[in-house]
Amino acid sequence: MGRVRAVSATPDVSSEQEFNAYIKNVNAEIERALDASVPMHYPERLSESMRYSLLAGGKRIRPALCLAACELVGGTMEVAMPTACALEMIHTMSLIHDDLPSMDNDDFRRGKPTNHKVYGEEMAILAGDALLSHAFEYIGRETKGVSADKVLRVIVDVGKCVGSEGLVGGQVVDIMSEGADEGTVTIDTLKYIHAHKTGALLEVSVTAGAILGGASEEQIGKLERYAQNIGLAFQVVDDILDCTATSEELGKTAGKDMAVGKSTYPSLVGMEESKRIAADLISKAKQELEGFDPVKVKPLIGLADYIQNRKN
Amino acid sequence: MGRVRAVSATPDVSSEQEFNAYIKNVNAEIERALDASVPMHYPERLSESMRYSLLAGGKRIRPALCLAACELVGGTMEVAMPTACALEMIHTMSLIHDDLPSMDNDDFRRGKPTNHKVYGEEMAILAGDALLSHAFEYIGRETKGVSADKVLRVIVDVGKCVGSEGLVGGQVVDIMSEGADEGTVTIDTLKYIHAHKTGALLEVSVTAGAILGGASEEQIGKLERYAQNIGLAFQVVDDILDCTATSEELGKTAGKDMAVGKSTYPSLVGMEESKRIAADLISKAKQELEGFDPVKVKPLIGLADYIQNRKN
Repeated sequence: MGRVRAVSATPDVSSEQEFNAYIKNVNAEIERALDASVPMHYPERLSESMRYSLLAGGKRIRPALCLAACELVGGTMEVAMPTACALEMIHTMSLIHDDLPSMDNDDFRRGKPTNHKVYGEEMAILAGDALLSHAFEYIGRETKGVSADKVLRVIVDVGKCVGSEGLVGGQVVDIMSEGADEGTVTIDTLKYIHAHKTGALLEVSVTAGAILGGASEEQIGKLERYAQNIGLAFQVVDDILDCTATSEELGKTAGKDMAVGKSTYPSLVGMEESKRIAADLISKAKQELEGFDPVKVKPLIGLADYIQNRKN
Repeated sequence: MGRVRAVSATPDVSSEQEFNAYIKNVNAEIERALDASVPMHYPERLSESMRYSLLAGGKRIRPALCLAACELVGGTMEVAMPTACALEMIHTMSLIHDDLPSMDNDDFRRGKPTNHKVYGEEMAILAGDALLSHAFEYIGRETKGVSADKVLRVIVDVGKCVGSEGLVGGQVVDIMSEGADEGTVTIDTLKYIHAHKTGALLEVSVTAGAILGGASEEQIGKLERYAQNIGLAFQVVDDILDCTATSEELGKTAGKDMAVGKSTYPSLVGMEESKRIAADLISKAKQELEGFDPVKVKPLIGLADYIQNRKN
């Protein structure tokens, strides 16, 4: 991993503007670290395919949450950066595989042709597999200055949040619910899908950062609940944006959920109620942050607001 | 993981018959442990799909190598069993993804319909992803009685052997070589493919077992070279069997390499020379075992012989 340049560990993000400046700095660090995390090597076509999707300029919410949680409890950004990169590798893997013709069959992602449109299906499947195994290797190899016990705990937690009890499990229930008869997909099923498909990885982004930063079990518990709430809010907002934003704004096909008859928050409870639910979840998330250092906590507050107000 | 029942740690496998009795016992332990490693849970269809391929009765060479290497250097079978299971999860993931229509497009594997023929392409891709992340989680969570440092080293080594510098890298070069003009795929390219696509995971099966069993660096070095030689031999024998065995014997489509114009050892150097190379590699592998306990080393000798003489 490349050297991580110093960024103020306790930014004063008392306003949206200040948060924007903070997140811009942090994201520049994340981009630098991601660029170094998957170097080019033989066979170059595979490295290219992995880098094409990893460096396609996503929102980097998972790495940002991981770094902010680590710094909140007194850790450094350096300590959490390998895990932050690994979380983005895993997120990227899930996007590459989701976009495949046999899955969601999407041609565009983040405003660019999807991985399989550029490199072919074989390479897209394999690039995802390589990113997934590289993620675990990277956490184990590159995390410095933390006990092996803690690194192992992070690896186990990340693994659980990706597999059949996490991201992939949520994905499977999502697929099984697609095109189901109206009324058969309940709000509970939708909550399961969201909590696993999106929530699990967001949650472990926060808790892994906290563990690496040396958080107490009580702090980890609070941050876990913070993460659960923003995770669910994230997906409610995603559902809302699928109805209201244009494809250009999203960088991917808009209105796709409706087109494939997918149950969403707006389709199940209506648009206004969906917005109220999102706001309520963000408010609950912020409550969990009470008791933490009021200055150091600002990045996590800003990230919660960002998740509620994002336009893509 | 379920309880591992006692199997003699130092079997006297002085003859083929004795080795067969040993491996039958060990394989029964492995099957029991694999069965417990991926329990059924919601969404059941995903667990079923993962278990369908994981428990399809392969040769279990990777787990057997891992357990034998661990016991050779003084470790117990219990210590290596979670890693042994994880290696088989990873191997299974690679088979599920390899068999996909956009990859090798195989309908049969181990004499049964391939995963995507039973569960569909979407589920097959996701079952592979879940097995891969579960493997790392499982090593980290279930390995008991070994320092976290060693478990972490095993996770890093396994990750490297799976990703772009290992199994997946070999797979990519294999795909790029397929259908290439005659004469353009050299023996060096073929060696690269074999060393990465098959060799890397066999190699880490041995070295991970050795690390968990408490091997010295010198012992790990010897066992690494043993594993490199049997890994290459394994693939040379695979190439030979593709020409000589029937589909029924292999449990998968025979003659496939020739049909798709793939370069193989028999096609590049002839059948007799291929057999000589395999025998030579096995002999070199055994030389690396000199200096180890003459009784405890017999399972690894037997596994080398098995790789040379196998019929499927």
